[in-house]
Amino acid sequence: MRVVVPFSASEPKTRLSDVLAPDERRAFARAMLADVLAALDSTDADPTVLATAPVDCTVPVTVDDRPLTEAVDARLPSDPDDDPVAVVMADLALATPGALERLFDADGDVVLAPGRGGGTNALVSRHPEFAVDYHGVSVRDHREAAARIGADLGVVDSFRLATDVDEAPDLVEVLLHGEGEAAAWLREAGFSLSTTGGRVDVRRSSGGS
Amino acid sequence: MRVVVPFSASEPKTRLSDVLAPDERRAFARAMLADVLAALDSTDADPTVLATAPVDCTVPVTVDDRPLTEAVDARLPSDPDDDPVAVVMADLALATPGALERLFDADGDVVLAPGRGGGTNALVSRHPEFAVDYHGVSVRDHREAAARIGADLGVVDSFRLATDVDEAPDLVEVLLHGEGEAAAWLREAGFSLSTTGGRVDVRRSSGGS
Repeated sequence: MRVVVPFSASEPKTRLSDVLAPDERRAFARAMLADVLAALDSTDADPTVLATAPVDCTVPVTVDDRPLTEAVDARLPSDPDDDPVAVVMADLALATPGALERLFDADGDVVLAPGRGGGTNALVSRHPEFAVDYHGVSVRDHREAAARIGADLGVVDSFRLATDVDEAPDLVEVLLHGEGEAAAWLREAGFSLSTTGGRVDVRRSSGGS
Repeated sequence: MRVVVPFSASEPKTRLSDVLAPDERRAFARAMLADVLAALDSTDADPTVLATAPVDCTVPVTVDDRPLTEAVDARLPSDPDDDPVAVVMADLALATPGALERLFDADGDVVLAPGRGGGTNALVSRHPEFAVDYHGVSVRDHREAAARIGADLGVVDSFRLATDVDEAPDLVEVLLHGEGEAAAWLREAGFSLSTTGGRVDVRRSSGGS
């Protein structure tokens, strides 16, 4: 399966700016990308990182500085003879080979992995007319787009693929369920789980670098 | 599969008090319970609602006003000859028969469906020594408890089972992915998706009852 992994190379993860400095956000985003690529490496995926700027990487990198929707759309099948293409976001720090294989193997001309809060964290397109639109409530828009072109829709029900890491509370999930570089990076930076309130949260020790 | 569905009958969903009045919280909690029971009804489950106070219901109800951990623990297998027992929370408004069957069919002496934020939204116990503890980071504690007694651990990777509905942002998921009474109740009460900010949120029209 051809897999496109969009990655914001310059100013990633701005919504983590209350807990991470700019250089830390870049390092953490790179650790999450490494985890996604490691999970893909245990599948039959043929991944390309689609980056907004050059980035050192273990897989081929294509630089395209257009907005996400346009850059991804240019890589989707546009001819009935084109191979299927999967799109997997670079901040799915909980992704496992098993969860990704469920995505790749699911039936459907269009297969969606919904993200929390209305996003589309991963998808497969096997339909030449399907186009993405990552603005707004993308999972709803993608469902409607699939219906409009008469594409059979598949949905993958995965907590791991639904968990993109955008804001501080999302770090709880990385610490609890992550097994790769992103979780290790957070621990090294001094983050741990905090259970003093009603909800589980993260705290950062002053000793964290 | 014997299934216990714990339900707080008196003062449910207090963390929704910023968007719902007390009687609305009770009605919405009942709608979510109805959705969970409807999903279970399409599986081979044999459900009992474990309520803190009497409640009208389509399935048998057991009243136990002890705290959640103690009340659930009293219903788990305690003898090697006991049948397996599943515990499915009553606020899993996105639960589908398919997601529940993945839970029931998963291999493991103990099977966990992690919830967001460290919770344990559903589980199966086939081990006489396994005990629950819903305080704190329960999914981590349950993993450790399974390891301590030498129980094989299974984990079900499901966004639908990971989504319990506790706070206002969780209503987004019900509106987007729910197909039952809870989603209908929210729409009737005037809730809809709001996409004017960076994140998808809910808003409530003044016309909502």
